[in-house]
Amino acid sequence: MAKVAIVMGSDSDLKVMAESAKILKSFGVEYEMIVASAHRTPYKALEYAQTAEEKGIEVIIAGAGAAAHLAGVLAAVTVLPVIGVPINATALAGVDALYAMVQMPSGIPVATVAINGAKNAGILAAQILAVKDGELRQKLHAYKEKMAKEVEEKSLRVQNAVIE
Amino acid sequence: MAKVAIVMGSDSDLKVMAESAKILKSFGVEYEMIVASAHRTPYKALEYAQTAEEKGIEVIIAGAGAAAHLAGVLAAVTVLPVIGVPINATALAGVDALYAMVQMPSGIPVATVAINGAKNAGILAAQILAVKDGELRQKLHAYKEKMAKEVEEKSLRVQNAVIE
Amino acid sequence: MAKVAIVMGSDSDLKVMAESAKILKSFGVEYEMIVASAHRTPYKALEYAQTAEEKGIEVIIAGAGAAAHLAGVLAAVTVLPVIGVPINATALAGVDALYAMVQMPSGIPVATVAINGAKNAGILAAQILAVKDGELRQKLHAYKEKMAKEVEEKSLRVQNAVIE
Amino acid sequence: MAKVAIVMGSDSDLKVMAESAKILKSFGVEYEMIVASAHRTPYKALEYAQTAEEKGIEVIIAGAGAAAHLAGVLAAVTVLPVIGVPINATALAGVDALYAMVQMPSGIPVATVAINGAKNAGILAAQILAVKDGELRQKLHAYKEKMAKEVEEKSLRVQNAVIE
Amino acid sequence: MAKVAIVMGSDSDLKVMAESAKILKSFGVEYEMIVASAHRTPYKALEYAQTAEEKGIEVIIAGAGAAAHLAGVLAAVTVLPVIGVPINATALAGVDALYAMVQMPSGIPVATVAINGAKNAGILAAQILAVKDGELRQKLHAYKEKMAKEVEEKSLRVQNAVIE
Amino acid sequence: MAKVAIVMGSDSDLKVMAESAKILKSFGVEYEMIVASAHRTPYKALEYAQTAEEKGIEVIIAGAGAAAHLAGVLAAVTVLPVIGVPINATALAGVDALYAMVQMPSGIPVATVAINGAKNAGILAAQILAVKDGELRQKLHAYKEKMAKEVEEKSLRVQNAVIE
Amino acid sequence: MAKVAIVMGSDSDLKVMAESAKILKSFGVEYEMIVASAHRTPYKALEYAQTAEEKGIEVIIAGAGAAAHLAGVLAAVTVLPVIGVPINATALAGVDALYAMVQMPSGIPVATVAINGAKNAGILAAQILAVKDGELRQKLHAYKEKMAKEVEEKSLRVQNAVIE
Amino acid sequence: MAKVAIVMGSDSDLKVMAESAKILKSFGVEYEMIVASAHRTPYKALEYAQTAEEKGIEVIIAGAGAAAHLAGVLAAVTVLPVIGVPINATALAGVDALYAMVQMPSGIPVATVAINGAKNAGILAAQILAVKDGELRQKLHAYKEKMAKEVEEKSLRVQNAVIE
Repeated sequence: MAKVAIVMGSDSDLKVMAESAKILKSFGVEYEMIVASAHRTPYKALEYAQTAEEKGIEVIIAGAGAAAHLAGVLAAVTVLPVIGVPINATALAGVDALYAMVQMPSGIPVATVAINGAKNAGILAAQILAVKDGELRQKLHAYKEKMAKEVEEKSLRVQNAVIE
Repeated sequence: MAKVAIVMGSDSDLKVMAESAKILKSFGVEYEMIVASAHRTPYKALEYAQTAEEKGIEVIIAGAGAAAHLAGVLAAVTVLPVIGVPINATALAGVDALYAMVQMPSGIPVATVAINGAKNAGILAAQILAVKDGELRQKLHAYKEKMAKEVEEKSLRVQNAVIE
Repeated sequence: MAKVAIVMGSDSDLKVMAESAKILKSFGVEYEMIVASAHRTPYKALEYAQTAEEKGIEVIIAGAGAAAHLAGVLAAVTVLPVIGVPINATALAGVDALYAMVQMPSGIPVATVAINGAKNAGILAAQILAVKDGELRQKLHAYKEKMAKEVEEKSLRVQNAVIE
Repeated sequence: MAKVAIVMGSDSDLKVMAESAKILKSFGVEYEMIVASAHRTPYKALEYAQTAEEKGIEVIIAGAGAAAHLAGVLAAVTVLPVIGVPINATALAGVDALYAMVQMPSGIPVATVAINGAKNAGILAAQILAVKDGELRQKLHAYKEKMAKEVEEKSLRVQNAVIE
Repeated sequence: MAKVAIVMGSDSDLKVMAESAKILKSFGVEYEMIVASAHRTPYKALEYAQTAEEKGIEVIIAGAGAAAHLAGVLAAVTVLPVIGVPINATALAGVDALYAMVQMPSGIPVATVAINGAKNAGILAAQILAVKDGELRQKLHAYKEKMAKEVEEKSLRVQNAVIE
Repeated sequence: MAKVAIVMGSDSDLKVMAESAKILKSFGVEYEMIVASAHRTPYKALEYAQTAEEKGIEVIIAGAGAAAHLAGVLAAVTVLPVIGVPINATALAGVDALYAMVQMPSGIPVATVAINGAKNAGILAAQILAVKDGELRQKLHAYKEKMAKEVEEKSLRVQNAVIE
Repeated sequence: MAKVAIVMGSDSDLKVMAESAKILKSFGVEYEMIVASAHRTPYKALEYAQTAEEKGIEVIIAGAGAAAHLAGVLAAVTVLPVIGVPINATALAGVDALYAMVQMPSGIPVATVAINGAKNAGILAAQILAVKDGELRQKLHAYKEKMAKEVEEKSLRVQNAVIE
Repeated sequence: MAKVAIVMGSDSDLKVMAESAKILKSFGVEYEMIVASAHRTPYKALEYAQTAEEKGIEVIIAGAGAAAHLAGVLAAVTVLPVIGVPINATALAGVDALYAMVQMPSGIPVATVAINGAKNAGILAAQILAVKDGELRQKLHAYKEKMAKEVEEKSLRVQNAVIE
């Protein structure tokens, strides 16, 4: 059963948001992905978020571009943590989506990650779930160690790079 | 009976949004003002916008600051024209609200005016209503002429200003 | 007879502004398109806007890039609603055009949509005309429903997407 | 025993960060507050974050201004969720802190809230803890209802406001 | 007879634009000041600029804030050099006026100076007139020397400043 | 003998700055082009500007990108009008060059045109020279008329464009 | 004899730049302060920088606001390290000065610190001098330890702060 | 033995940071390059910077993109001069990295150069080392002269360019 919902404003966001799914899959965390638009299907979006808790969802990830209201609208009707991924989809290079997500008014937080930062959204979701899942927490520790090791390998290559 | 709805995200927006009301009153256009928050009372906001048409509302003005989702959320459930007033309410000086309103995705327009431009929102609402109200249109012409006259008077004062 | 005027500052704007025309055509709304420049043919632009009302035009859409004065200059001489489309045409990615359109001074509103948001400008024009055209309003409701349905279909594809 | 750590880069940040403490206190969530600087006491900051998990801390809130590295540096050595509060402390009005927090590279997320959004950081921390604390979740539902009620009261005042 | 026209969009701009007048007066250059709005009195503005050449005006200075179209609109109908002064008059701190002035499209230049840079606009106007007025050019050389001398005096004070 | 100097910070700026030369040539205005860098050959740049007046130069156009100091440095040592062309040459898309040119301190104006606006710089130079050259002024009037005519032709094409 | 030159564009910059002097004084580093303007006294500025090396100056700190060319112009004629302090002096809040300093073209670096960061400029100058002055380096280590201690004291106060 | 350390946050930064290495090599300055991440290997990064002084490193260059904390974190534990190179690596075009580097709080300077300005970082490192290395300083003078000569050659090509 899905513990993380990955909601996106349009199917064109899938190429970015798939990164959330991939990293959650690698941690063995169940997720589901849907398209729900704050503007084109507002009631569906609200109903989805409002019933998520009873369906067993524990964290919601919302990715959207432009005037990105999706994360805020979902957060309006749930007390589950909502993670926002601002997507670079317009001439404003994602600054519009970033401001529209991160500047939420008092009372309704959205946990915003970097522009197009869907992978980090997945990791953050796992960190939140790990508050009650010791095994998942160990996987996160292992992931951190693996990243550190990769840096060491990259460093070796850079140390030995030939500069003409 | 109100033809224009002036919706604001918080009562702290009233000092800005009252300008919409004042100018509409001066044109003899009936309006109503309510607070409805896209984040704190999303269903109320949606229901208000969705039933506005049948209640006789013809134009909606929505003012909000920060991650200003209000106008977009109202526009999601009505085909009435929705005018957005981005309000300067955070460290970002209204740029957050401007981007969150004006950059609406395809399909759901918000007619955005200047940051804190509530007076112009009222005039725009009147211009829209004047599409079927010839008397109101004449008032708008008269208003334009009055503005032009005021410029002439200001110009006289400036022409005669003493520069030391 | 045309009810909506689509004015653009240069013929290079046509590839963006054609979206306004397409969506209006799909709603069965008559429009006309012209090039009129606030800077290269200012009197023509003013005269066009000033006589638009008596010619039966009811809404003006103005698209321009750079220091985009077109919408404001047209709005100066008409009380018809003027919709502005800021066009991404310079190194500043449309922010110059956005600021030059949306920040109109008190008294002369421009209903600004997103950068390159010509399609939404067309929809907004239809929403305004629908204030006195019940049939058009029904078409707008139908369009909204169609959009919602498309989201559902996209969602199905995303729900079933295979993430490796 | 504290479940939430509120870390700030300087004691001058206390007036903003106290909002996180207040809201957590209102939910009955234990917290501790310390000053630890990514730049002036980097080892202390790292050690604090690295040992937080074993001390029973479950969420870290980090507030900082300017080139705000604190949240990222804490996130580097823990797999606990780290919430970042960008503080408006320089001529750049908090945009520097926002970018320095939210744009974290792949692998190390920081859950960023609005500029000076310490209250929302506290609510988000509670939402995260509520993943395993049903009682806390009920408090969050109650808080949401209270906010909605307040909007209704504000709306009544606005509906009855006299516009001259 | 006036050689420089100082045009401003509103009498509220006088406190900034008076600096143009003062510096021109100090150089002995005749000027006239008027209020003419691209939006409230567009025909007056155009007519003023179009007839300026035959009236003996040789340079036009235009100051305006917000979506500052004034300089561009004047430049549209004259081949006299038009100097633009973007005025800090909105939440966007003059960036709106700067972009709306400096980003003029090909064919219609506006010689833009700094935000609120009305004094420099006056000096630039004098530099332009000095193309055919040797005496004025000498005054400009003398002004430059005076500025250099003032820097020397300021430097002496700074060199001797006591730092505790 | 050259009346306009076109100075650029690097030969890589030639592809932009050639537009100034082309338009001046079309007006029959003599010009010379050189590379002089405020940073790599500061004394040459200063000497060039300081001796320009006695050599018969009447207007200087300076194009530069990045931290574009060239125009300001030339303006420091001449009382000739200096026109600045900010060039889009870095990740900041010309905003760096724009700010570094237009925000000149009091006393030393730079007549700034649009990012990459070299053609307008040439036209502005011609407008300045036309202060004492009636024939050139007539050419500028003719150029304006030609632009207007071109708009008319473009408009015809747009009016007849087929929208599918 | 002075080892660090603190150059500022105007005496109005002294209140910011005095911070460089104070911190250098606290380290026992000799400095001198002058006003030299890239625009009002360019030759003086160049000559000062060019002769600085032979006079025994080893590091130059340059503070300026607006289109802040001073640091770049000094760097043009010396191979001494030049540290730039962008000063918040205009409507653009120091972003203009920051871009005009930090975006130096290839070949001529300016070591830029934060907007109004004159204190850090002094510390950086000391760090550079410490490359050949072991005693100064020890003072820098001691300063770092003192800062860490102050953080500890601030932390104690924050840990014990009473939150109502 | 290396005198300059070139540290980068990821091996993907090598294509930019190699410019630091190349220019240092051309001056005959020994350097070493490593990858160390403020977020993925924070202890390694800190340890590297903290032991750099005793290993004989005299200047550190740090290049990073996004929320670029690397330079600040290294500067936290060393009193060696730290030069920061903000790298254009995200949708924000390097502005995120610039702000995250240059806006360092009081006490911990980072000598920031232009976005992607790795070559200038190398030159600045050489200028710092030249404080105690007269031979290196002569090389820097020679480099400056070579740059000036290249400008002269470029100028000749531009002076003779044929403009059609």
